[in-house]
Amino acid sequence: MAVGLRSPTDLGSVPGIRLGTACARIRYSDRADLTVIEIAQGASCAAVFTQNAFCAAPVTLARRHLAAASPRFLLINAGNANAGTGAQGVQDALTCCKALADMTGCKLEQVLPFSTGVIGEPLPVTRIVTAIPDAVDRLSEAGWLDAARGIMTTDTVAKGCSRKITVNARPVAIAGIAKGAGMIRPDMATLLSFIATDAVVNSAVLQACLGEAVAGSFNRITVDGDTSTNDACVLMATGKSGVVIDDADSGGFQQALNEVCLELAQAVIRDGEGANRFVTVQVEEGRNKAECLQVAYTIAHSPLVKTALFAGDPNWGRILAAVGRAGIGDLDIQRVQIYLHDVCIVRDGERASGYRESAGKDVMAREEILIRVVLGRGKARESVWTTDLSYDYVRINAEYRT
Amino acid sequence: MAVGLRSPTDLGSVPGIRLGTACARIRYSDRADLTVIEIAQGASCAAVFTQNAFCAAPVTLARRHLAAASPRFLLINAGNANAGTGAQGVQDALTCCKALADMTGCKLEQVLPFSTGVIGEPLPVTRIVTAIPDAVDRLSEAGWLDAARGIMTTDTVAKGCSRKITVNARPVAIAGIAKGAGMIRPDMATLLSFIATDAVVNSAVLQACLGEAVAGSFNRITVDGDTSTNDACVLMATGKSGVVIDDADSGGFQQALNEVCLELAQAVIRDGEGANRFVTVQVEEGRNKAECLQVAYTIAHSPLVKTALFAGDPNWGRILAAVGRAGIGDLDIQRVQIYLHDVCIVRDGERASGYRESAGKDVMAREEILIRVVLGRGKARESVWTTDLSYDYVRINAEYRT
Repeated sequence: MAVGLRSPTDLGSVPGIRLGTACARIRYSDRADLTVIEIAQGASCAAVFTQNAFCAAPVTLARRHLAAASPRFLLINAGNANAGTGAQGVQDALTCCKALADMTGCKLEQVLPFSTGVIGEPLPVTRIVTAIPDAVDRLSEAGWLDAARGIMTTDTVAKGCSRKITVNARPVAIAGIAKGAGMIRPDMATLLSFIATDAVVNSAVLQACLGEAVAGSFNRITVDGDTSTNDACVLMATGKSGVVIDDADSGGFQQALNEVCLELAQAVIRDGEGANRFVTVQVEEGRNKAECLQVAYTIAHSPLVKTALFAGDPNWGRILAAVGRAGIGDLDIQRVQIYLHDVCIVRDGERASGYRESAGKDVMAREEILIRVVLGRGKARESVWTTDLSYDYVRINAEYRT
Repeated sequence: MAVGLRSPTDLGSVPGIRLGTACARIRYSDRADLTVIEIAQGASCAAVFTQNAFCAAPVTLARRHLAAASPRFLLINAGNANAGTGAQGVQDALTCCKALADMTGCKLEQVLPFSTGVIGEPLPVTRIVTAIPDAVDRLSEAGWLDAARGIMTTDTVAKGCSRKITVNARPVAIAGIAKGAGMIRPDMATLLSFIATDAVVNSAVLQACLGEAVAGSFNRITVDGDTSTNDACVLMATGKSGVVIDDADSGGFQQALNEVCLELAQAVIRDGEGANRFVTVQVEEGRNKAECLQVAYTIAHSPLVKTALFAGDPNWGRILAAVGRAGIGDLDIQRVQIYLHDVCIVRDGERASGYRESAGKDVMAREEILIRVVLGRGKARESVWTTDLSYDYVRINAEYRT
């Protein structure tokens, strides 16, 4: 049911990054659910993690390891989040990391663990440890697409994206994968996404580049407003191209990275649980970005707006009601305009005089919908991306675990 | 599908209040959808209204009229919200009020209009004006139950409640009705509710009593987080009993009023759109009431928690994730306990060691579910009431208007 999204048929590789998958039967018996990513010696690595106070054991451990050493391996499992599992959860993640470290001869701190899936169940350590050698055996620079499949949970389509850019007349590769379809409203962090480049980028610049890219992409999407316990996004720079990026702007690196992150983030929304629509909520003429986001998220999280989107019903009163309850105390409704694409539905705070229901219906029948709200208060603007609320969203989340 | 809720079979009357209904065919062709409530001369009246910036024309007008005169009539229609309708909407509401004022000989400002239903469509003024005489003809002190039915929209059950209390050895009556099933998250106001007593209560005391009663009832319920444009709650005191209430505490008046409001508010949740569960979210040991409410509403609005409630799935990881993302910056998760009724599912921030899935399943199979979160930070506590998120919620809101 993904909206305007197909699984990539191939992904460009990144010299210095090898990926391998294996079937650990954590939750799924017919597909790979364990992924190992090997990072070349000497690479830089930046990461952002969930802001959920109940962050998962692998998040705690990945943060700790990242502070202690340069990562050589990422170990990612699908089907079990290892969250809400306390001290045992940390111990379990450590045991898995140690198995990979022992096998490859790196230090324990050079392995970062990542988990997604059901919260609160013990991690099946033995299954994971048993499957690690398979995944290591299959490590390959051509493994990106398999890895994109290996990290999926309720995703219906694998998500990946790659770019080749030219910096100082020399080629630089960027590739990334992501997973996520529900419990999606990343907050200063993201779902699971792994992105790599063969540029030479030091850690400080890399972290700054990742921060900017995530702010405009993963941190602007929401399926259900539920920020996960396990979100993480990692950006690796292997340096194998020999091309030095010492400033975010050099050679369009930041722009290409932004594009990769936005494409991956939008892919998560297009494959959002039960999604029939891909919806852009754009709020303009706010006094500042914060109030634009406040209005945009209120619309994007409104179950009434989302069910109207599912029905293809131009029930714009629900959008207006959401703007009105968004908490902007001194909102002058006389200055508010609301558009569905180019169709003006609300002008000067009330139904636009020229509005025809048929025009609204035409727009709402599309798979890709733009809701534009003009606040008439300033010059700030923000966009967020979201989906509709369908029977399938309820089915997927009522049946998951059963 | 209402949870543990039946339509009342009779409602106690309140001397000084008469109610009449009529079929105006605003949206429904087979039932009364227009209600007139007559208030005796000399009564006091208090009201609270929606805080939605896009408040409806009748809300604007009711506020204005209430400030100018003592109300003699309430004019209530179902099926059309007269919201997002600008200056024409105010004019339309005025025309309807004037028809009732002319017919009954009261002043225009003594009529308060109330509307609920679809937002953004012109009010069918002629149909309403034509039906007013019928409703006036049927005015009766015994009209409470008919009025409870007349104000319904997507409600499946009429909602009313009455009490007899004794103050200074003399009887005082309280009766109230309410409507609402979706677009429910009242904010310092409420859906539509009309409550009356025959006590003698001056306006200032009456407003204070209403404020307290609403704070603990209508302002603690949520179906979908969507605050309506049309919420209003009116409390009338006719004085016909001759019993003077000059202090909220006198003779248990405030307590009886609180009980009436809570029963009506909970009735709205029990009849929430698509509801299969009646859920109490109780947050204890917070530092203050605000943070208790923040956590309670984050749980109550989480689509993942709500779909798990629909499925009867003790997927407590979703509750834990919601607590973690509720925005309490310095939350010490080691002190957090989560219970389903008496079953402890999370202790010291992780899965309780004695927890058995079967015990969780037993609780989640009930129609009435208590989620208790103990924050371990202080002495404040708050409760909110909500429903699950079901296929029927999606169906009702995808089909409404079609």
